[in-house]
Amino acid sequence: MNSRGRRDIPQVSKGGFRIIGIDPGSIACGYGVIERDSRKNLVCLAYGTINLPRNLPLHERLLRLYHEIVIVLKEYRPEEAAVEKVFFAKGIKAALNLGHARGVVLLALAEEGVAFSEYNPNEMKKAVVGYGKATKEQVQQMVKVILSLREVPLPDSADALALGICHLNSRLPG
Amino acid sequence: MNSRGRRDIPQVSKGGFRIIGIDPGSIACGYGVIERDSRKNLVCLAYGTINLPRNLPLHERLLRLYHEIVIVLKEYRPEEAAVEKVFFAKGIKAALNLGHARGVVLLALAEEGVAFSEYNPNEMKKAVVGYGKATKEQVQQMVKVILSLREVPLPDSADALALGICHLNSRLPG
Repeated sequence: MNSRGRRDIPQVSKGGFRIIGIDPGSIACGYGVIERDSRKNLVCLAYGTINLPRNLPLHERLLRLYHEIVIVLKEYRPEEAAVEKVFFAKGIKAALNLGHARGVVLLALAEEGVAFSEYNPNEMKKAVVGYGKATKEQVQQMVKVILSLREVPLPDSADALALGICHLNSRLPG
Repeated sequence: MNSRGRRDIPQVSKGGFRIIGIDPGSIACGYGVIERDSRKNLVCLAYGTINLPRNLPLHERLLRLYHEIVIVLKEYRPEEAAVEKVFFAKGIKAALNLGHARGVVLLALAEEGVAFSEYNPNEMKKAVVGYGKATKEQVQQMVKVILSLREVPLPDSADALALGICHLNSRLPG
């Protein structure tokens, strides 16, 4: 479920703007790289999910997450990033675990000099489905349509791509 | 309040065992490096607090924390680490912020190949004061005495040193 094509990564097109959306999680982290070209077309360059198996020790999961995100940032060189804002978690432990993953992602962005914006799930859903309480399936379907993908992306990747679309809409409206 | 002496860092003594205690926080992160020599004496090599000003953006705070911890790890080359275990936070937002800092610290340990153990505050207090519900001041005073420090360390550093003492006691009892 990883569409990264490492061999053939296009330079940012003239007048284009390339961003990455990231949906950090302690078990899986979705990402999606989108470019808006000078004609305002959205082109999805890559998306995928970094899986962090539960049976790995925490620090190894964080190390894997960090290195995978840095690889994507170095390969695609997005100019900006959109990361999911967190308001809610199923208790202190879940928030702490999510924080671990999120801290590592924000560190990777800082290391690579990529400025980031945060969007809450409602904003993200509204940007792609037009409705803040849309279901996961609706987000997946709309992301496929908006980006003309060949297949329906998995939920983590779809959320990351939706964050990216949300960011492009807010940065370059119209 | 930083006792790091960068110019004169001793090698681990023969038969000695060097560890670092770390008390991660989103505003300040305490650390303390302790060596137990072949005669079972505890020697404090360094301690300090990495301050992360609230007015800095989150990712810059995380970047600073990461780089400072990596510097300490590269300078002192501790064999193992003790990190505070978290059970409690003042709500979801506090847990998330603490998680950000903790994730970055655990990543630094993983990058530098330093295995870590976690101890909860009660274990840490019991190890230095002999009483799981000791006050911060008691911990500070006892850490000063146990490590023959010239001054009373500030709370974040004292907690980090106490975690280190706790770890040494559990790894090399007697």
